[in-house]
Amino acid sequence: MYFERIESKGLAHYSYIIGDGTEAAVIDPRRDCAVYEKMAQEAGLAIKIILETHRNEDYVIGSAELASHTGAEIGHADSHLDYVYGQPVQDGQTWHVGQLELRAIHTPGHTKGHMSYLLHDPDGSPWMIFTGDCLFAGDVGRVDLLGMDRAEEMAGLLYESLFNKILPLGDGIIVCPAHGAGSLCGTAISERSWTTVGIERRKNPKLQHREKKSFISHVAKELERPPYFREMEKLNIQGAVRMENLPSPSPMKAKEFGKKAKDAIVIDTRMELGFSAAHVPGALSIWLGGLSSFAGWFLPYAKPILLVNEMENVEEPVKSLFRLGFDRIEGYLAGGMLSWHTAGLESHSIPTVTVQELCRLLDARKNPFILDVRSSAELEKNGRITDAVHIHITTLLEHAEQVPKDRPVYIFCGSGMRSMIAASLLKRLGWENLQVVLGGLAGWNSVSCPLDL
Amino acid sequence: MYFERIESKGLAHYSYIIGDGTEAAVIDPRRDCAVYEKMAQEAGLAIKIILETHRNEDYVIGSAELASHTGAEIGHADSHLDYVYGQPVQDGQTWHVGQLELRAIHTPGHTKGHMSYLLHDPDGSPWMIFTGDCLFAGDVGRVDLLGMDRAEEMAGLLYESLFNKILPLGDGIIVCPAHGAGSLCGTAISERSWTTVGIERRKNPKLQHREKKSFISHVAKELERPPYFREMEKLNIQGAVRMENLPSPSPMKAKEFGKKAKDAIVIDTRMELGFSAAHVPGALSIWLGGLSSFAGWFLPYAKPILLVNEMENVEEPVKSLFRLGFDRIEGYLAGGMLSWHTAGLESHSIPTVTVQELCRLLDARKNPFILDVRSSAELEKNGRITDAVHIHITTLLEHAEQVPKDRPVYIFCGSGMRSMIAASLLKRLGWENLQVVLGGLAGWNSVSCPLDL
Amino acid sequence: MYFERIESKGLAHYSYIIGDGTEAAVIDPRRDCAVYEKMAQEAGLAIKIILETHRNEDYVIGSAELASHTGAEIGHADSHLDYVYGQPVQDGQTWHVGQLELRAIHTPGHTKGHMSYLLHDPDGSPWMIFTGDCLFAGDVGRVDLLGMDRAEEMAGLLYESLFNKILPLGDGIIVCPAHGAGSLCGTAISERSWTTVGIERRKNPKLQHREKKSFISHVAKELERPPYFREMEKLNIQGAVRMENLPSPSPMKAKEFGKKAKDAIVIDTRMELGFSAAHVPGALSIWLGGLSSFAGWFLPYAKPILLVNEMENVEEPVKSLFRLGFDRIEGYLAGGMLSWHTAGLESHSIPTVTVQELCRLLDARKNPFILDVRSSAELEKNGRITDAVHIHITTLLEHAEQVPKDRPVYIFCGSGMRSMIAASLLKRLGWENLQVVLGGLAGWNSVSCPLDL
Amino acid sequence: MYFERIESKGLAHYSYIIGDGTEAAVIDPRRDCAVYEKMAQEAGLAIKIILETHRNEDYVIGSAELASHTGAEIGHADSHLDYVYGQPVQDGQTWHVGQLELRAIHTPGHTKGHMSYLLHDPDGSPWMIFTGDCLFAGDVGRVDLLGMDRAEEMAGLLYESLFNKILPLGDGIIVCPAHGAGSLCGTAISERSWTTVGIERRKNPKLQHREKKSFISHVAKELERPPYFREMEKLNIQGAVRMENLPSPSPMKAKEFGKKAKDAIVIDTRMELGFSAAHVPGALSIWLGGLSSFAGWFLPYAKPILLVNEMENVEEPVKSLFRLGFDRIEGYLAGGMLSWHTAGLESHSIPTVTVQELCRLLDARKNPFILDVRSSAELEKNGRITDAVHIHITTLLEHAEQVPKDRPVYIFCGSGMRSMIAASLLKRLGWENLQVVLGGLAGWNSVSCPLDL
Repeated sequence: MYFERIESKGLAHYSYIIGDGTEAAVIDPRRDCAVYEKMAQEAGLAIKIILETHRNEDYVIGSAELASHTGAEIGHADSHLDYVYGQPVQDGQTWHVGQLELRAIHTPGHTKGHMSYLLHDPDGSPWMIFTGDCLFAGDVGRVDLLGMDRAEEMAGLLYESLFNKILPLGDGIIVCPAHGAGSLCGTAISERSWTTVGIERRKNPKLQHREKKSFISHVAKELERPPYFREMEKLNIQGAVRMENLPSPSPMKAKEFGKKAKDAIVIDTRMELGFSAAHVPGALSIWLGGLSSFAGWFLPYAKPILLVNEMENVEEPVKSLFRLGFDRIEGYLAGGMLSWHTAGLESHSIPTVTVQELCRLLDARKNPFILDVRSSAELEKNGRITDAVHIHITTLLEHAEQVPKDRPVYIFCGSGMRSMIAASLLKRLGWENLQVVLGGLAGWNSVSCPLDL
Repeated sequence: MYFERIESKGLAHYSYIIGDGTEAAVIDPRRDCAVYEKMAQEAGLAIKIILETHRNEDYVIGSAELASHTGAEIGHADSHLDYVYGQPVQDGQTWHVGQLELRAIHTPGHTKGHMSYLLHDPDGSPWMIFTGDCLFAGDVGRVDLLGMDRAEEMAGLLYESLFNKILPLGDGIIVCPAHGAGSLCGTAISERSWTTVGIERRKNPKLQHREKKSFISHVAKELERPPYFREMEKLNIQGAVRMENLPSPSPMKAKEFGKKAKDAIVIDTRMELGFSAAHVPGALSIWLGGLSSFAGWFLPYAKPILLVNEMENVEEPVKSLFRLGFDRIEGYLAGGMLSWHTAGLESHSIPTVTVQELCRLLDARKNPFILDVRSSAELEKNGRITDAVHIHITTLLEHAEQVPKDRPVYIFCGSGMRSMIAASLLKRLGWENLQVVLGGLAGWNSVSCPLDL
Repeated sequence: MYFERIESKGLAHYSYIIGDGTEAAVIDPRRDCAVYEKMAQEAGLAIKIILETHRNEDYVIGSAELASHTGAEIGHADSHLDYVYGQPVQDGQTWHVGQLELRAIHTPGHTKGHMSYLLHDPDGSPWMIFTGDCLFAGDVGRVDLLGMDRAEEMAGLLYESLFNKILPLGDGIIVCPAHGAGSLCGTAISERSWTTVGIERRKNPKLQHREKKSFISHVAKELERPPYFREMEKLNIQGAVRMENLPSPSPMKAKEFGKKAKDAIVIDTRMELGFSAAHVPGALSIWLGGLSSFAGWFLPYAKPILLVNEMENVEEPVKSLFRLGFDRIEGYLAGGMLSWHTAGLESHSIPTVTVQELCRLLDARKNPFILDVRSSAELEKNGRITDAVHIHITTLLEHAEQVPKDRPVYIFCGSGMRSMIAASLLKRLGWENLQVVLGGLAGWNSVSCPLDL
Repeated sequence: MYFERIESKGLAHYSYIIGDGTEAAVIDPRRDCAVYEKMAQEAGLAIKIILETHRNEDYVIGSAELASHTGAEIGHADSHLDYVYGQPVQDGQTWHVGQLELRAIHTPGHTKGHMSYLLHDPDGSPWMIFTGDCLFAGDVGRVDLLGMDRAEEMAGLLYESLFNKILPLGDGIIVCPAHGAGSLCGTAISERSWTTVGIERRKNPKLQHREKKSFISHVAKELERPPYFREMEKLNIQGAVRMENLPSPSPMKAKEFGKKAKDAIVIDTRMELGFSAAHVPGALSIWLGGLSSFAGWFLPYAKPILLVNEMENVEEPVKSLFRLGFDRIEGYLAGGMLSWHTAGLESHSIPTVTVQELCRLLDARKNPFILDVRSSAELEKNGRITDAVHIHITTLLEHAEQVPKDRPVYIFCGSGMRSMIAASLLKRLGWENLQVVLGGLAGWNSVSCPLDL
């Protein structure tokens, strides 16, 4: 028997491979799917079945690519949509993987056709359930993707799926969701990396609303939706370009890079401090670990992408972008910023201040303009900064006019990382007097300046 | 948060590393403990705590070695024994690993001082329990190690540990035992690679005996105990030699190997077929995957060991033997059997027969002597071969006199692998007319010869 | 500056990647070309140029596949052939890789349009020469591929290439050939893994014939040519199927394997001893390390291929076969021979004898039929066995009628490995009374039986 | 036959492993010597011989550690020194590695007892020479280590070694030195990564001085000597602490790190830009790739070391420091600078300017104080900056008083990397008004400001 969870960091996406005898099944494979083929081969397994829990909206699914390499059968949920690959899964349908049995359970709510898959162990007992975006550790799937006018309807379906289909399976069943902490598909996914029906029943805050009405009113909320979701929804019905047909980005010398940058988006994946000190004019700052969460908000699909990285790290950022369907990565700055400067090209900088410095400004009643780019939920949970203007980073482009151009702006978030994204976005639009507050709220809370809770 | 299970194949031993913030704990580390240090370093964690569930008897524990590299504190259970390292753990004692909490629960039965460790998740709820050799997937710990005269007493303690301490934690708790399927520490461990209290409560055959008396009578049984257990019990109180101080075995040319073989035990780790065709005279056949299970039955600690391997595979067999405390591995045959033959040295062979050939002999009423080396449990479960003489392989050396020397002996097991071990043991003792039945009972069952069930 | 040699074991094929700044060139890439892409990416290089020294006949060249991934320009030699990819290289043509310069030197002889490529170091001095199949360590390229009627003409061209173009470059130049010891492209390639013009000038036996006539008469010889060369010659002009479009072979259960075996060629890649003890009826024995050398002699391209391997080793044999253009590998026996026997399927065996046993037969004047399958060159160099019948293994199928069916045949080679190939070939054709002599001549020479030199 | 070169990046140190049959030899092993053991094991070789070309002064040699694991015999050169391990090598001494022969050739000059080792190929011909610090690609060993009063004497010895011992071996011999481009052991080592006697004879600038006198006058020069050389010289006679006994550095939370930093040296291994924006007060900037070259100039052996790294990269800097004998690395800042700021701790910054900005200052006749920390050789070769004050970075601590504290100082080097080291050194000593010029001379040369050549 073989069971492994494959985690895609950043996306916080979980996929699974299950095997027995000489057969394997994969649940919700990611686009860069060589990982499953390699694992299967090393374990002497042939991938026969690929199952999707739902039409995904936050990443490019790898079903079609994996099937093209392995000849596996694809079962897709949400069969009311116009899929161009695979076969629709029916509620109750079963598959066998060696002596293991998988059974589809229709669990709508996140999407209309969402399927969960119940795995029986070699003795034939219910054992694990692959819950996709229906049930997470500490959270449930979002129900607003069809529009807020249908959110209550979807929340009602989700209630039925959870309380009448999943919870009755028994506390001991192991729950294998499609996402872990940090995903855009849930706001409150717990850090608890493995969970069970029993733990969720007792601890999942949403499942404490056992009355359907109360559940609906707590779950039917609008969450943020990055613009790239639309592209993913489309790609995941049509099938994406095969990874093997994507050219691999080229190293470019500084001058060539500078020229190409004029018609491209430059993303700088270094940590915020390096970006602060010097960056290619016009570059957007998104640190490597934040690419999966933030690229989809700010990058257009139509433009070529160029990368600036900490030296010798191009595979990771490229993989992160490919997973979101950003296929037009044309190149990266060979030798990093050092080569930019040794080529005599001019760079820009964005100053930083420590929380102590911000504190001194406040104490001196300099009345600085503080732009807080955290989410409303964070403000509620962790506290506000007196007199800060709040614009969540994801809506900054729409509300940029609220930010003054004629006085210093101090940008603030949880740690300083998102602030640098925000600063780079504003700078591209012409703002000049921008400063990023290092340490953000976490740092702020460690010093004794006024903070109203 | 960080959680990984490390499996030592062959031994079917599970150890665990848990981390949060900058701290990590390791439960029941194995001897070759670099794996934990590497994982911790890559995750930015310092190993602060090493916990043992009990004084192990089936492998060399790595606590002392790991502590010497990391400065971690060792907590050992079974504190009534004369430990020369670490501190005894108290029932109820707690440790913190970042925001995670571990709590010791005294769960005697397998040993007197056995501890389980309950892990709370970052929200402070009970989450996982490290049950050592108390509770496995599908089985419970053996209770015969203090002698059969105390087995009922120990089974009673185990009953209390299971029914009054572990099951009450709730069905949703994830159970992390020290062994998986294939271990010598349980006879019936399930292939279910992850499990929960709920699944065990419903499915574990031993836990269906809810009356204490009934439980005791089903559990207080004598199981086989390989002679190496005694050595492990001693080493695991005294601490073993550090891995880094063990010389790594040298490649030896055929003639040198042949000379050294006179005062050593030669173990041939190739598959049974290669051994059958030709092997170094006197060699013991134990295929690589079977080393952890069988070396401890037949190898003495006092003699140097020499290895014959399929070419270029020396790291795996050496690691397997080191885990059982066989430190005196002096070398291996460079270039494998090919080099033995090209050096003009003579080899021996042990013939094989297919089940069809055996069948033909039986049909022709040739009345062959069939030696079945499977365990009694297998015979009961899977059926006997008419007229076969049964001696379990682990007791073969004691009962060898039952095997005739003056007529052909056909050796039979589940698949043919153990039969080759048995044949090599007998051959070392002077038997000559030995044949191994390929495919064993599994093969036998696929053809239509008489088999009484 | 970046320089690496990539060796394909078995084929004894060398390819090279050279880089400087952000650019790289690859010389004579192999078919599984991901290795170059990975190296280039890790070194921050873009592969811009792919150069072929000649139209290869012994492996599938990866130029077209590598170019399709990287956009590199392909330069091919032998431009009088009908290439469907790349641009013909002109004598004297130069390319720049960063500050390095490569210059083509027309060096016909092995083929008519063969090119060598002279690399200049960053200071602009001649440094290394990529000699393809013109000059090897200890040998020169074969000249018989256009037919023996043109061999003297080609040897004359080769003489000019070597003595008037390569040797004049100076003793210090490092020689980078396309093959090392063990290749079918030379009979006498030395084990000296790195070499220079000076070492070859002094030590290469062929280069000691400094008179053109003498050189021609020593070089214009017919060498063996495996039938697969024809297929390679064709593929290397047309371009092969892309690796990514080849399905990966599936694990098959024994019964399914047995059924499919009827219309396929089964290749057993285990060492000769395991094959000897038991194999799938009809299987051809070619041990893993010998696949590159022997598969091309005995495998047809038209039939599907099935593999039997030592457990868990499928990647290596598949890669070896793909490199020779054997793309129709449909599957492999999951679980190896053990699963064959546990499924109750019948296997065959081929007995072995040690050299001692053969010796005893000879001493007893049993007059056994000894079939020696070594090459004529080996016989000359290493000695004959009295009264053995000599048929080189590569011509065994044509001369099989010389082998008697009515008396025991003892098959003999250098070590016993090729003998098992020969035995499996004969067995497929109906021979039954076959025995393989373990250790072969090497073993024979270590014992004191009559051997005339 | 087996031959591999192992490169230690940064140090630009080359060591070699040679094998044949079942035996291997290692030349000049580095301290972290597991690499040789792993290679040998995978190739089925036992390391029997370890040879040192000389008592090294620029890194900790791993002979004693490697011998303790393998039982190999150590041969050391410079036997007039008080070695506590190994046996002195005699001129002309030979060793056999399988069929290969190694022969010692006394080649004094760099040190008195320096040995080169001539390797013969399997055919018995001279093939490669391991020249240690006698002959490099493009350079020869330095002769000033015994003091400038003996430099001419040593240069004379070196002349004899090169012209009378190495060059006569013939142009075709492959030269395998102990260092490549970038080493502190030569000022002019070429980027030509493989070389031969012939190439050096024709191209090595020092070898163009064929008259002894002329050679001596060009070679007997004083080169810089980092203070750590003394420690290495001592350690390499006494033997260093075993790697396995060095504790591995712990991740530390920001506050703990801050406390320990008071009695330690903090080294920040991030790229210069991140350091510029924010760093732990008092930290010394040495980017990861520069550690091997610069740590030995500025770090004391007596103080504990703490590291700040780009996240998740601790293995590389630790290894680099261990190779220089810096064993007291107590910990690193877990979570990097982000965790420092989120803990609310104050950081410092050092501003940067682009070459354009410096240019504008010059154009505006602001007369800035420019401190050029390049070496004299660089100034001569690449040009000076008008009115810059020149202090080579390696002597900055001695001449710091030449740098004003009362006006802005613009620090300048080749690219900006060393300037940041210099800035961090000065800042630790109390300078405040420091700016680093990004791009350094390379950048400067790409813009059109006045530069006198």
